[in-house]
Amino acid sequence: MATAATPKTAAPKTAGATDSRQRFIDVALRLFTQHSFAGTSLQMIADELGVTKAAVYHHFHTREELLNAVVEPVLEQLRAIVDAAEGQRTVHARAEHMLTGYADLAVRNRALISVLAADRGVIEILRAQVDLGTLINRQVKLLADVDPGPAGLVKAALVFAGIAGAVGPALVELDDKALNQHLTEAGRRTLGLRTPRRPTPGTPRP
Amino acid sequence: MATAATPKTAAPKTAGATDSRQRFIDVALRLFTQHSFAGTSLQMIADELGVTKAAVYHHFHTREELLNAVVEPVLEQLRAIVDAAEGQRTVHARAEHMLTGYADLAVRNRALISVLAADRGVIEILRAQVDLGTLINRQVKLLADVDPGPAGLVKAALVFAGIAGAVGPALVELDDKALNQHLTEAGRRTLGLRTPRRPTPGTPRP
Repeated sequence: MATAATPKTAAPKTAGATDSRQRFIDVALRLFTQHSFAGTSLQMIADELGVTKAAVYHHFHTREELLNAVVEPVLEQLRAIVDAAEGQRTVHARAEHMLTGYADLAVRNRALISVLAADRGVIEILRAQVDLGTLINRQVKLLADVDPGPAGLVKAALVFAGIAGAVGPALVELDDKALNQHLTEAGRRTLGLRTPRRPTPGTPRP
Repeated sequence: MATAATPKTAAPKTAGATDSRQRFIDVALRLFTQHSFAGTSLQMIADELGVTKAAVYHHFHTREELLNAVVEPVLEQLRAIVDAAEGQRTVHARAEHMLTGYADLAVRNRALISVLAADRGVIEILRAQVDLGTLINRQVKLLADVDPGPAGLVKAALVFAGIAGAVGPALVELDDKALNQHLTEAGRRTLGLRTPRRPTPGTPRP
């Protein structure tokens, strides 16, 4: 069975410690995408890196702590996109900013977005631990306000879930630039947004 | 720890045996949606029903067997929809049939579709065990052929992943009829399909 945890010692925050922390995060994300969050143990992460479980415990005491470390950088970017979108002047500009920002974020973080969006266990934990529920509601509202009512809400849900699913493995094999462009255009069609004359930064020209 | 498995005995196929088999399937689906497939053990299913693990083993020897029993009825319906869609005369009629059939199936099987579409562990197992990979490719092609090339492929992926995600919990709270109608209309917009004059069977009138 599992190695017993060693008592935690305060590690100096050296470059080496940061590197090894990041290695755990990278391996955790890879295993989460392969086996789902519930199917990944700290022991599996230790085995993958060829270290003891105690070495993992040195940085992360629970899988939930590790999950937070994995998702926090992307949630931070998502919060910034939502904030900036809410600051736009018109309903259409707010939706356009949210859509292009989300497509760009999703494409740049394919593995993580598909874990975030698809893994039920992950969503439940993040809803409890961070402001994910509020953030998702704000996101959906930014797109749904283009067409107030249930039809608009369903279009917003379809676009968000669709982008998160389409960046996942197996469905579409395109490079980031092409995938971003096509997702943004598909999202605009669904929502009824006009393609801006000047491409939004981050959206490649056709 | 777990109870040891009893040797399998051939059970008479009585109504009682079928009922208890169905109870396992119902509870398994509920636990899969709550905890993901990887996060659900046969022991948890036994505990939920107040029976021994041996009683679960009587019907299902592995979680994978139970998963197949859970998804097979819906996969059967999906195959029938794909077959019928491929039999339509035009590209647009094929896409329309696939879209309305999938939206209807997804709405009637919300819990299962979100497990099927979202749980990475489930998808990997089903790809290996059944013809899910082929079925998904046929599904995607039926929608993607409306606009040949990468843009059409991305629109198809967005619609399928979007419908599967939008029927899941938490995003949209609508009754089946309204959700089906709005998903179908959103899908048509994304794909560039005209709303048929006579509603397709299964698609409620606006």
